[in-house]
Order: sequence, then structure tokens, then C-alpha cells
Amino acid sequence: MKPRFYLDHNATTPLRPAARDAMLAALELFGNPSSVHAEGRAARALVDAARAEVAALVGGRASNVIFTSGASEALALALRPWWRRGAAAWQGLALSATEHPAARDGHDFPEAARLPVGADGRLDLAALETALKAAGRPLMVAVQAANNETGVVQPVAEAAAVVHAFGGLLVCDAVQAAGRVPCDFAATGADMLVLSAHKIGGPKGAGALALADGALHCDRPLLRGGGQEKGLRAGTENVPAIAGFGAAAAALMMTGPAEAERTRALRDAFEREIAALVPQAVVFGAGSPRLPNTICFACPPATAETLLMALDIEGVAVSSGAACSSGRVRRSHVLEAMGVAPALAGGALRASFGWTSQAGDVAAATRALRIAIERLDARRA
Amino acid sequence: MKPRFYLDHNATTPLRPAARDAMLAALELFGNPSSVHAEGRAARALVDAARAEVAALVGGRASNVIFTSGASEALALALRPWWRRGAAAWQGLALSATEHPAARDGHDFPEAARLPVGADGRLDLAALETALKAAGRPLMVAVQAANNETGVVQPVAEAAAVVHAFGGLLVCDAVQAAGRVPCDFAATGADMLVLSAHKIGGPKGAGALALADGALHCDRPLLRGGGQEKGLRAGTENVPAIAGFGAAAAALMMTGPAEAERTRALRDAFEREIAALVPQAVVFGAGSPRLPNTICFACPPATAETLLMALDIEGVAVSSGAACSSGRVRRSHVLEAMGVAPALAGGALRASFGWTSQAGDVAAATRALRIAIERLDARRA
Repeated sequence: MKPRFYLDHNATTPLRPAARDAMLAALELFGNPSSVHAEGRAARALVDAARAEVAALVGGRASNVIFTSGASEALALALRPWWRRGAAAWQGLALSATEHPAARDGHDFPEAARLPVGADGRLDLAALETALKAAGRPLMVAVQAANNETGVVQPVAEAAAVVHAFGGLLVCDAVQAAGRVPCDFAATGADMLVLSAHKIGGPKGAGALALADGALHCDRPLLRGGGQEKGLRAGTENVPAIAGFGAAAAALMMTGPAEAERTRALRDAFEREIAALVPQAVVFGAGSPRLPNTICFACPPATAETLLMALDIEGVAVSSGAACSSGRVRRSHVLEAMGVAPALAGGALRASFGWTSQAGDVAAATRALRIAIERLDARRA
Repeated sequence: MKPRFYLDHNATTPLRPAARDAMLAALELFGNPSSVHAEGRAARALVDAARAEVAALVGGRASNVIFTSGASEALALALRPWWRRGAAAWQGLALSATEHPAARDGHDFPEAARLPVGADGRLDLAALETALKAAGRPLMVAVQAANNETGVVQPVAEAAAVVHAFGGLLVCDAVQAAGRVPCDFAATGADMLVLSAHKIGGPKGAGALALADGALHCDRPLLRGGGQEKGLRAGTENVPAIAGFGAAAAALMMTGPAEAERTRALRDAFEREIAALVPQAVVFGAGSPRLPNTICFACPPATAETLLMALDIEGVAVSSGAACSSGRVRRSHVLEAMGVAPALAGGALRASFGWTSQAGDVAAATRALRIAIERLDARRA
């Protein structure tokens, strides 16, 4: 079998050994955490231990972590008009224009204001302030810590200060940022943070909504019934996935900074190779603070689909835009919001590095890109 | 360590070896099923194979199976007012009084009519017809295939015929019935069937909403965003849990009938032991068709909590009512709907057998119950 080189860690990243071990151990303790007998209590203990580990990753309290089936569900739970803190509530919603579809389409407000980003991909803070003023009522505002497609890091702390000045509540999707750049409660000032296990080396099937404080409550959560997760998320807890999530969070606390520097070196090396290989190449968000592991680029006039398939044949896995669209090829709303011309955006590829990445991945991706570009050039010649 | 005897398979049942093997294999294929590269396609193939296996369990088509994070989410997805079949839609909801809290509290209709059950725990079909007539518009109707607390099997096929005669749609929660009594589309006449992986020997973290036909569509699903599951359930698929779910379904197709007879013998033996030990014992739903593995009983005047804890100390795990209430001790709405007096209902214990159950479980439970009853009698003397 041909060797594979995986440069798509923003889509999903391999399971960390510690997470795998935790899952295998959890599969033995099969009890239902809601059962009061010994088997139930053993399962409950695993969930509680993981809750503390995930809370530590975001500098929060374990009792304020709500486990969900993933980040899409956590965003859908967060972006509902039934949250309150004492008498304060947020009847309106505003979203950065580059938020993930799970926020854009997943919220449960009647409508949502769209907050523009600049050509650099960063939220326009003046526009945010104007929107908050114009709303005339406190808003819930969703701003990603870092974008999944471009890796552009958002000015979340600055946004949070503005939002709070107007009595608003800030929801921060930290799915891609967690462990890569500072995005805990202290760094972001967020009221709610959204996490995904499988983006940090945990398993698919677990995510979390972490609350900044215990006074935040939702009168009508997304999943209602069994009363689990303090009544905020019904359904038997996915114990093995939650245990794996906790282990991945604990591992990331230790290795995150070193991994960030290692992937930054690999990403920067690949970026240099692209520039050398394709003089007309464009790197999106290049002038902005970006996640250390992510590069979103185009090699005009090559289309993303052509390059992606050519690279895949050479054993290199990259992505065209977000991976979460069930294979659908569609225009990136992120690049559109940044004002990128459709023709150029149609060539956008994302390469993202992770904890298993090595120098060989850069070499393989460079070689595959060269082969693909040369073939395209030959065809055009 | 003291040996344990697990008689709480309705709360959750140990992972079947085939399901464990499928999960371990799936953990190696870490790709995101939405990615178009080789890693993504390998993950997608696992999900599709499991989809066919789960469809076979309910006699449905693979393309009509929607994977969710569990049965609570599948019920919440089913019980929404945005489903339609062509021009037909269902603006009102009626629920059997003994439905699971995930249906009672989890639906998204403004209100729901409560359909009474008899003292036998079975849906009152005449009352159903009256409710459908009185509604004056087609209703969505939810009826469990079998109750989780008492094991009472519902007249689903009869209910479906009545519902359909009035243009309604029948949602059947087959979580406890699957593999234990016939509850596929042919046997139930249901339009939607709800399944849980971890109740049939699969892992926690996966469930399914199976549709009777591809013409059923939801204009506003519960989780929106990434477009997965034909747009009906956003979020990265929980590939390992789904693979385990498929393997459990396939195993159950082969072993279900034999397991049902084996657990029936164990359950019946335990029922005889209870009657011999506690002459005043009451078995709820005793005169009704019941799941072969379930017995719900009381030994007045002993309370459920006292007996449950006494049994747990002796190594025997049973449940007091449903396990999905996060350890909360609360009155059973199921027994209340059956007209059971509160004092008697307060003593209700559930013992449920499963694929790992053996004769030793009955012996241990009988011995533990005898010790507990004798101690209580001695205290009262």
C-alpha cells in the first residue's frame, strides 16, 4: 500500500494514545452513569474525572462543563434564546460572518445579524459596536477563537469587552483554537466556550459547552428528558468518548505549546515551498495572526477539486474548505466574507498539521503539489 | 472483590464482542467521513456499512436511516412539527402517557395530548381514536413498542392502523423492544422507529431514527449546519460508535430470538422466586404481553431505595424505575398512568436481563432479596 501523508488535522485528527487507553478502559465499565448501583457509580466517576480535565483545559470549573455529542450540538445548545443569568437574557443574536455552519445554520433565534470581517479575515470591531448599539437590546454574540478554514485568529478578548459593555453575552467556538493558541476563559473573556474532542486528539462523539459561571442557565435546552448534565443535556452520557475527551484534554495541556511550535515550523516550511513552487500562489489571511498549524492557499488557475484529487492520488490528504459539508463542493462563505474573488476562492486548499505531523509530510505534499502543477501546466501548454 | 450480578440491562447492556471489535477497528480509521480523500472515504465506508446493518434490523432501507448521538436525540429529531411527506404535515402531537421522558419533555410541539393507558399499562385504543377525531387535524402520535420500566408491550400495529386512518403519523420508540420482540416496520406499521445502540449491546453515543420511506423529510431538523445525514443531522459522525452499533445490530439479528427465550426463562424463574419469597409481592403489568427480559415489581412495604441499596451491597444491580434520571428518586409516571397507588409505586424495582445473564444472576438476586426482606422484617418485629 502506498504511504499516506495526512495534512487535514482541522477536519479530524488521529486519536492520541492516552485517549485510546482511556476509551478502552471505559468500554469495560459499561454501567449507565445515571444508575445508583456500583456499576453506575463507576461510570459516573469516569465522566466526572473527564469533566475536571476538560474544565482545566479552558480554565473553568468542572461543574460548569456540559458534555454534548460534539461541537455542532454544543453550538446549537449555546445559541438559543432561552439562556439567562439571573434576570439578564439575550433575545437577539449576532454572528461573525465567518462562523462555522453549525453556528450560522444551527442557532435557534428567529434571525441573526451578520458581523462583517475585514479582508484580513478578522472581525470588524467597529461594526460589532455599531450592531450592538443599533440592536437596542442585549445580544448574544458568536465569535470563533480561530477560523477552521483559514486559521485566522479573531480578536475575541476585544470583542468580549465590547459585547459586555453593551450587556451582551459572548459565545466563543474554540474548536480549532483549543491547545493551539490561548483560548481559555481568561484569554478570551468569553461567557461560553465550545470544544470538540476529535479536533484535539480525542474521539468523535464528544464535545462540550463550557460556561464561565454557574449562574448561566438555559430554561429550554436542546435535548430534554432524562435530566442528565444538570438538566442541560438529556441522554445517556457517551462514557467512553467522554473519557477519551478528558484524556486528550489532559494530554494537550502538557504537549500543546510544543506541538504548536512544531506544527508552526512544518506549516511555515510548506508555505515557503508553495511560494517557491507557484509564484502566483495566494495565502489567505497571511497578514493576520493565524493558527500555527493551518494554511489556506490557492494556486491559480488550478481549482481546488483538481489539486485535492491529484494530491490524494499521490497519498497526500488535504481539504478544500471545511470538511463538514458531506463531500459537497460549495463556495466558501469564509473567503467570500473576506472579499476574495470567486475564481480565486474556487482554488482554495487547506493544509492543517497536527500531533502526528512530521517533516516527511511537508516533503510529500510539496512533491505532490509539484507533480500536480507541472501536469496542469503541461496540459495548458 | 465481591462478585457482581447485573440485572439492569434496560439501563444499559455490556458491549457485545462483535461491537467492541468493530469499534477498535474503526478507531484506526480516523478520517472524517465528510472528507473526500482516501482517509475520509474509508470512514464513510464504515458508516455506510453500519447503516445497512441497522436498516436490516428494522426491515428498512439504509438510505432512510439517520444516525444520531442516541435515542434521546433521535426522539427529539422525530417529534418536531417540521416533518412532512409531500404536502402532508402533522401540526399536533399526541403521546401515550407512559412514553419515555425524552419524548414527553423532548418534543418540540407547543403542546402534546396525553393518551391514557389502562391498568394493564397498554394504550387505550378507543381513547386514541377519540383524540384523533377531536383534534380535527392529522396528528403525529408517539407510542413505545415496549415500556422501559414495566416491559409492557404496546399494541403498536393496532395504533398505527388507527393513526393512519386519520391521516396521522406514528413514531415508535423501539429502544427496549429491538431484538426482544418483533418491532420492525412490518410488525409495527410505524412511520418512524427510534433505536439506541447501547441498549442492544452496542456502544453509548449512537442511536438512529429510521424512516419508513424516503418521502419523509424535515424542513427544520434538530441539528443544522454541516449537512451530514442527508441534511437531517449536522455534526461529524461518531464513526466508532456507529460501527459498533452496526455490529451489534448484525449480532442481534442472529442471536435475538435465542436470547429472548433465554432471558424469558431467567426472568420467569426470578418472578417465581419473588412470589415464593414475598407473598404480597406485586408484578406490574403481569397480565399484559411483556418484554421477555423485564420484571417490574414491589415487595410492600419495602421502599425501592431500601431494597435497591440492600441488593447493591450484596452485589446485585437492579433499578428503581428508569435509570435515566441522574440518580434522582422520583415517582414513576408510568405506574401513575397505570393507576398504581403512590405507596405501592414507591416500592417498584426493575430487574432486566440481557445477553450476558446467567442462572447465577437469578440465584444471587433471590438470595440478596431474601436477606434484605428478612432484615426489614426483623426490624419491624
